[in-house]
Amino acid sequence: MPRMPVPFGDDVSALNLGRGKLAVLKTDMLVARTDVPPKMTLWQAARKAVVMNISDFAAKGVKPKAILVSLGLPRDLSEEGVQEIADGLNAGAREYGAYVIGGDTGESSDLTISISLFGTAEEGEVLLRSGARPGDLLAVTGRFGKTAAGLRILVDNLEAPDEIRGTLVESVLMPRARLEEGLALSRTKAVTAAIDSSDGLAWSLHEIASASNIGFLIQKLPTANETARLCKISNLDPTDLTLYGGEEYELVLTIKPKLWNKAEKAVNRAGGTLLQIGKATAEKRVLLETKGRRHTIEPRGYEHFRT
Amino acid sequence: MPRMPVPFGDDVSALNLGRGKLAVLKTDMLVARTDVPPKMTLWQAARKAVVMNISDFAAKGVKPKAILVSLGLPRDLSEEGVQEIADGLNAGAREYGAYVIGGDTGESSDLTISISLFGTAEEGEVLLRSGARPGDLLAVTGRFGKTAAGLRILVDNLEAPDEIRGTLVESVLMPRARLEEGLALSRTKAVTAAIDSSDGLAWSLHEIASASNIGFLIQKLPTANETARLCKISNLDPTDLTLYGGEEYELVLTIKPKLWNKAEKAVNRAGGTLLQIGKATAEKRVLLETKGRRHTIEPRGYEHFRT
Repeated sequence: MPRMPVPFGDDVSALNLGRGKLAVLKTDMLVARTDVPPKMTLWQAARKAVVMNISDFAAKGVKPKAILVSLGLPRDLSEEGVQEIADGLNAGAREYGAYVIGGDTGESSDLTISISLFGTAEEGEVLLRSGARPGDLLAVTGRFGKTAAGLRILVDNLEAPDEIRGTLVESVLMPRARLEEGLALSRTKAVTAAIDSSDGLAWSLHEIASASNIGFLIQKLPTANETARLCKISNLDPTDLTLYGGEEYELVLTIKPKLWNKAEKAVNRAGGTLLQIGKATAEKRVLLETKGRRHTIEPRGYEHFRT
Repeated sequence: MPRMPVPFGDDVSALNLGRGKLAVLKTDMLVARTDVPPKMTLWQAARKAVVMNISDFAAKGVKPKAILVSLGLPRDLSEEGVQEIADGLNAGAREYGAYVIGGDTGESSDLTISISLFGTAEEGEVLLRSGARPGDLLAVTGRFGKTAAGLRILVDNLEAPDEIRGTLVESVLMPRARLEEGLALSRTKAVTAAIDSSDGLAWSLHEIASASNIGFLIQKLPTANETARLCKISNLDPTDLTLYGGEEYELVLTIKPKLWNKAEKAVNRAGGTLLQIGKATAEKRVLLETKGRRHTIEPRGYEHFRT
């Protein structure tokens, strides 16, 4: 399409409606075999299908208005199962102020939930991956490694003390999109680039770096306390779980240094936190600094588990 | 959603953009195992996934602008296969003046192509299923039974003479949406209700009848010549193939009698034909009149074949 307001390959697509307005669209598909871990209910799977799409709108600072659902249902799914899916879809939509306004159903071997989101935005207001400049501060909206740890517990039956097990498992079964944070940040004009971390923190950093033609130096790895604790007990590598886990719906953003305070306040008012973890660099590499030494962060992403 | 401009369950969804404009949305999924017959190439399957969605826009008289695609790809699909799918999607989009502006890919056992369409319309201009009144003329944009016959040839290896085989098989492999006809008809204001015939002619009639609270009397069954010929040779029932086949993307419409000529001219100018096959009745049954006797047309629809 000529003159696309958002480049092909970004997290959402957009087209011009005239009068400075954009239609913003997004579609993504959840397939049970690869995206629904053991112990996740159909209600939770349906809600997650919505959340993972909302998260991309959050990263772009766009409010989702309407949701369409295309369902591929296995032949042996019960009527109660279908109702559970419908309830989960609606719950996910209402949680973020959107409505399921239509869709279609068909038959499929794997349960398949394809979600389409629609919203509108003012021209020039959609946060892209491509605006980061050297010197910008690198920020995230939360700590990482919880879903990677939670999946070890759910998929590999890893043991975990009760006081951290709940949080880690919950992060997988009931993910939350940072929509309020994304909308608040978009209004500050402080953000130069943004993405969500659904493919893992390392992958997100490389995506912004490549789209913006910059690099990153990470100075503080944002590992969740529960993850650090589990890694100590079970002899896992916290850096690995923090950087290369996935299905974590935090926002990864670059912020103009002069507007950091404004951005932080906006996120706090939206009920969230903004953590500075490093900065954008002219050198086009993604590096992690620990104990005075620099290591390359690989452009490796989370794919999905397989049952 | 409060005050939906198009009722839930119609072929498209819509929401108000303000200033009398509607955003119109549609999503539907093609699953290879049930929707892609033998001998259909990946290019054709991808194009068909687009066409079946465009057809719903055609029935509503709405021009599609942008297409998003969510692909579930089997692990063993080659890179050439993926390229063929991408080319088929683009070909389908460009054939109807729309653009593929984004999407996502994931892994799935069945090849799954979920399409989302976006377009805009003026408020009150979207053709619904629910406006038919007794006395309206019942019309279709083409003859029926070709895909049902074509599927017998492709799936059941039914023999057919060369001079009709090509047309019947082509109707399955290269379906066409009646977009120009739908757009032209929408501008005439002659149409009181509309639907496409993807679930079969009988099903479409029952959907309009039920949404409009009317019935139909069919006086001329629009059987395609090629289908009639094959039925004679192979001892098949042409009524059955005409009414209960599916994946046929004709429009089924009710027309205000006084505006019939205007509607017919508009369709002709768009390169199509409009066939009157009966009329809407106050009696809420769907009846077929042949040789002076009336038979009930069952509310039975085409589902899909299974390989």
